[in-house]
Amino acid sequence: MATVDVSLGEKSYQVHVANGALDRVGYLCERLRMSGKAAIITDSNVCPLYAERLVQSLQDAEYEHSLHVFEAGEQSKNLSTVETLVNEMVAEGHDRSSFVIALGGGVVGDMAGFIASIYYRGIPFIQVPTTVMAQVDSSVGGKTAVDISAGKNLIGAFYQPKMVVADPTTLLSLSPRVIREGMAEMVKHAAIRAPRMLQALQRLADEIDLGFSLNTIEHLPTLIAENIEIKARIVEADEKETKGVRAYLNFGHTLGHGIEASVPYGELLHGEVVSLGIRAALYLSAKYGKISPGESKEILRTLRVLELPLELPPRIDIETALDKTAKDKKFCSGSIRFVLLNSLGHPVLSEDVTAQDLKDALLHLTTPVQEY
Amino acid sequence: MATVDVSLGEKSYQVHVANGALDRVGYLCERLRMSGKAAIITDSNVCPLYAERLVQSLQDAEYEHSLHVFEAGEQSKNLSTVETLVNEMVAEGHDRSSFVIALGGGVVGDMAGFIASIYYRGIPFIQVPTTVMAQVDSSVGGKTAVDISAGKNLIGAFYQPKMVVADPTTLLSLSPRVIREGMAEMVKHAAIRAPRMLQALQRLADEIDLGFSLNTIEHLPTLIAENIEIKARIVEADEKETKGVRAYLNFGHTLGHGIEASVPYGELLHGEVVSLGIRAALYLSAKYGKISPGESKEILRTLRVLELPLELPPRIDIETALDKTAKDKKFCSGSIRFVLLNSLGHPVLSEDVTAQDLKDALLHLTTPVQEY
Repeated sequence: MATVDVSLGEKSYQVHVANGALDRVGYLCERLRMSGKAAIITDSNVCPLYAERLVQSLQDAEYEHSLHVFEAGEQSKNLSTVETLVNEMVAEGHDRSSFVIALGGGVVGDMAGFIASIYYRGIPFIQVPTTVMAQVDSSVGGKTAVDISAGKNLIGAFYQPKMVVADPTTLLSLSPRVIREGMAEMVKHAAIRAPRMLQALQRLADEIDLGFSLNTIEHLPTLIAENIEIKARIVEADEKETKGVRAYLNFGHTLGHGIEASVPYGELLHGEVVSLGIRAALYLSAKYGKISPGESKEILRTLRVLELPLELPPRIDIETALDKTAKDKKFCSGSIRFVLLNSLGHPVLSEDVTAQDLKDALLHLTTPVQEY
Repeated sequence: MATVDVSLGEKSYQVHVANGALDRVGYLCERLRMSGKAAIITDSNVCPLYAERLVQSLQDAEYEHSLHVFEAGEQSKNLSTVETLVNEMVAEGHDRSSFVIALGGGVVGDMAGFIASIYYRGIPFIQVPTTVMAQVDSSVGGKTAVDISAGKNLIGAFYQPKMVVADPTTLLSLSPRVIREGMAEMVKHAAIRAPRMLQALQRLADEIDLGFSLNTIEHLPTLIAENIEIKARIVEADEKETKGVRAYLNFGHTLGHGIEASVPYGELLHGEVVSLGIRAALYLSAKYGKISPGESKEILRTLRVLELPLELPPRIDIETALDKTAKDKKFCSGSIRFVLLNSLGHPVLSEDVTAQDLKDALLHLTTPVQEY
């Protein structure tokens, strides 16, 4: 089992990554001296796949528990679902001594974490992420949120879990498209902190459609833990994104969010717009004389072999995407803080990027990638 | 100006109490180096009375601001109002650099504080309480919450304000009934920490219907600051109500909440059920051989001269009130932790109180108070 420490003073916790860890959640809760009843929050996709095993492991450790399932999808990530789930939890007798277990992908983690942060003004919670995106990124770092009509993730809390338990074998049930989109965040991690990981990601590409080899499965925990290490170190340096460092994790996300918000939800997955956003950010990094063409190409080549999009679909309206980018919350008091790469592994926050630059970058995405 | 320090490490803040302080909020924000735009959240009762003066003071200090008004009353304290107000704030261009000002009573403070705690995962907020209840109790201590169908205050956050500005002259616009109910919390403070305050409260009683004398108005800031001191010291000792000390503030509240939940909202004000709850708690304190009859009588006499209820209205169903009490969140994992008085000024957390005791105490409330 790979274990990553996230050191945040009183809020420190451990991330356990191991094949088969799903069946050990109850044991790990016991070891952590979690007390009280567990409220498992999951969605309609994940529940039939993994809830039974989680429930069994809690039973083995003699935890009382209840199961709360909402309809899978970002469209459920709202205050109405929050209220429904909280009412269910109250009806099941959960009080301030209970704890929450989030079983699922990013939407489940965001919602269950937010519920834990506000239920009786805050109860402990544990993340059990089951997607690439959630395991390498969203389950670690304490960002929780739900959407409102004015925009995505506009309300939420910085609320750290007490533990994260990632079982890479749960990734084997994901569709290739969902695996690919999660890997976009791994490419991001490689770009800002671990360039040598790009090769490893390229080698995985061939196996995504065919299914991972046993050898790959054996090594998944190490690769995932490496990604979590990167995220953990950044979160430790800047837990609440006030010092600029955590903003590095937004590499590829600023224009990515604008593109994401300009199409109906689900047309492009989050990792897919991150892939587009990374290409745009590399274009601007080059424009401001930072990264070398060879380094850019290495990143683009990785995204391409992972079959992640690099060209903007024709139906995307540039002006809409720009407008949505301007409204995105990554902007601070009107000024644009854009993450560029100085070189592979070395991001920098730039305030030089203009609105015209953003437009140019989006237009650049309408052109084919020239070469790798 | 009386100033009370609330010392909570990085979350420390000051409470300023002064007649006319409402017109100095902008200046005080400036002194505190608050930056960004202010989102004023208030209700339909308070807005016409005080919003203009607050807005003027923010203009004088050159703060950009917007005003967000919801319909007065506990029935507005829900997630639907939260979402409406948050959407309004986004439309007004507030981002993570903005701050919230809560202008109003307990409902406004609870809701605005909760919104501040979740808007962009948390932005600073300032409390400007305008009722007795909010000035002496709810604006200090960082408890924020909204109601859901399963119960009152079931979701919320511990989220401390950056500053509290209480202007006692705003109390002059309150109805006598609302002044009286707020004073129930002052009686509670006197009972658990400052017995000599009981005399001062009794002396105020005569003036509530007639209007406070100029002499009284001059001394209100001192009396209010004394109450805030009591609350602040308790909150400092136990910010998140995990150590038992903060539970002392629930004196009179356990059965009070049960009674409150058993009648339609608004029939009995919060302070009125606290008055009933205090009598019940005194009955149980006596039963367990703690407080002397003379001490109990002194508290009851104070509640009586303040014209706060001491007998349960006949329409209240004891079983319903008991059931609601059992469901109230002050219960921890099924065991009852009940605040009794050992003597005036000396509360104690007891686990001796049984369900039958609670019923007896409620039945006791159906009998007239014998003597003072």
